Amino acid sequence: MDPRVEEHAKIITEWSTSIKPGDMVVINSSPDGHELVVALHKTIAKAGGRVVTLMTSEEAARAYYDGASDETLQIVPEHMKALTESCDVYIVIRSPVNTKALANVDPKRIMINSKTQQEIQGIRLGKRWSLTVHPCQTLAQQANMGLEEYRDFVYGATLIDWAEESKMMHVMKEHLENHKDIRFVGPETDLYASTEGRIWIASDGKHNMPSGEVFTAPVEDTVEGKIYFDIPFLQQGKVIEGVRLTFEKGEVVDFSAEKEEATLKQIIEIDEGSRRLGEMAIGTNRGIKQYTLNMLFDEKIGDTIHCALGRAYKDNNGTNESAVHVDMIKTMHEGEIYAGDELIYSKGKYFYEM
Amino acid sequence: MDPRVEEHAKIITEWSTSIKPGDMVVINSSPDGHELVVALHKTIAKAGGRVVTLMTSEEAARAYYDGASDETLQIVPEHMKALTESCDVYIVIRSPVNTKALANVDPKRIMINSKTQQEIQGIRLGKRWSLTVHPCQTLAQQANMGLEEYRDFVYGATLIDWAEESKMMHVMKEHLENHKDIRFVGPETDLYASTEGRIWIASDGKHNMPSGEVFTAPVEDTVEGKIYFDIPFLQQGKVIEGVRLTFEKGEVVDFSAEKEEATLKQIIEIDEGSRRLGEMAIGTNRGIKQYTLNMLFDEKIGDTIHCALGRAYKDNNGTNESAVHVDMIKTMHEGEIYAGDELIYSKGKYFYEM
Repeated sequence: MDPRVEEHAKIITEWSTSIKPGDMVVINSSPDGHELVVALHKTIAKAGGRVVTLMTSEEAARAYYDGASDETLQIVPEHMKALTESCDVYIVIRSPVNTKALANVDPKRIMINSKTQQEIQGIRLGKRWSLTVHPCQTLAQQANMGLEEYRDFVYGATLIDWAEESKMMHVMKEHLENHKDIRFVGPETDLYASTEGRIWIASDGKHNMPSGEVFTAPVEDTVEGKIYFDIPFLQQGKVIEGVRLTFEKGEVVDFSAEKEEATLKQIIEIDEGSRRLGEMAIGTNRGIKQYTLNMLFDEKIGDTIHCALGRAYKDNNGTNESAVHVDMIKTMHEGEIYAGDELIYSKGKYFYEM
Repeated sequence: MDPRVEEHAKIITEWSTSIKPGDMVVINSSPDGHELVVALHKTIAKAGGRVVTLMTSEEAARAYYDGASDETLQIVPEHMKALTESCDVYIVIRSPVNTKALANVDPKRIMINSKTQQEIQGIRLGKRWSLTVHPCQTLAQQANMGLEEYRDFVYGATLIDWAEESKMMHVMKEHLENHKDIRFVGPETDLYASTEGRIWIASDGKHNMPSGEVFTAPVEDTVEGKIYFDIPFLQQGKVIEGVRLTFEKGEVVDFSAEKEEATLKQIIEIDEGSRRLGEMAIGTNRGIKQYTLNMLFDEKIGDTIHCALGRAYKDNNGTNESAVHVDMIKTMHEGEIYAGDELIYSKGKYFYEM
């Protein structure tokens, strides 16, 4: 086995989920994640945990939609609920075979089914949980890479010193919370927001793996100014590029995109909340050296910031509500970040590197 | 998809487990069974069931043993228990990647782990359950066949008219239960046993799929005579061939094998129960036209009988206890089966065909 798979399993087991003797662990993986499932069985066994492995499959999910009536989709899967309630740790491995298997299922039917999962999802988020990927051809192709190249990319982002990263990120969180506002400055960009009463979270690999972002929910109606997002991102199957947004009193008052502007317009006009920001964040993972159109990685790229239109997280004390949460990313090698009067980041250096 | 996979899924869903709206269904499959998992998602959805799919993997099991201490192996997986308790139907798909992955794990450690599964296994057997195979290279190779040939073999055994088979098997069960004993006669064979107070079970595809046997547990100390088993079988990784047994007052008093006699001797001498018969049965599935060293199929071959040394089933009112249950099979094209004074089978014909 590629020793990096074993190292990945060790990080998930020891750092992300801190598995200890007697822990009841659920692994949820697609068949293509099998190699990481095997490696995790060994590391979890060593830590004294017991494992149940679920097989998810986009093709099976599609077949289920094809067979089920709307009534059937409304039945709560009580056995899934019982399993989730009785576990201590829930690990999800994404290694899809076909990310488009559900493309032609009526979104309303997916919504009906999702509602039966909401309570279960809530229970899951109350456990120690981790979400990661296992490199596969499907993700490599989506990232515009060969498989070996993609493996190097994933492990470059994942197999880093998380204790050290965490320390730096928590220092940054403290500095950010010592002030009441945030400002992103750079080419075509000067965006301000109050963060008073909001919580900054250092996402240090306890949930997402890889991670590497310090994020909050801005006070919704205080966002002012303009911003240019130079990293492309995927939404509704389209790659949107070169987004420019202008905010007044928290609302988007002007917008454009160099590519797929119509899709951007559609997102902004979905509901009241989708024209406001639900998240402002700083990416810190320098192991991620390029975007791959996969938000799990892209929003964590070191020396970037990102903002999300739409839903805010309660954990940040955020209040903005929306059906969507759409992240957009900007590189900051030419930019600066201020918290109050403090320069937090300047042109390739975080405050603790200046 | 091969339409036979869809037909197989339909039989499991409708005939074997009778899935109805609201049923909580667990599928337990190796990654190689994915195609049947997909087909089952559609048929179960149509029937109104909800599905949770477990991924079993010999390689993951091996990794778990390699990592776990003996203490860890003694922990009951409570989340597996909760899942099993909360389901209505449990479907197991065998489609192994490597049947020898656990070959070098200390059998004592496998036993320790198995004990924590006993209660869960008991709960599972109280549900509607079904065990089947999905054709794969590993099983094809074990059967000494190419994959397409093996697919033909499996579906020939499985995609039959189970309602019709069941009817015949239940008629046979009634005839057998109208008498108090059973006698197998043929070349080098004349074996008698009392079946008084014992139950004959028609195994008609509700649990094993494929199935096709009518079986009971003989009254242990009444087995008398001799028998020659002409179909090879696999035990402890060895293929045992041409077994001859002689019984007096229920016990093996003489034995030989044309191949691997030492292994046969070892089995017979394991404990008190392993020198007595725990099962006597008639195979009825004429869709199975040859042996493949896989007992799920071999013991059901039409126009055969089989006997098992060792443990009897409680469902038959059997009482013989043993650590083993070893089935051995004999073709009956030249033989006869009597229940009391009634000729149940003669040289290629069951009583209802004579």
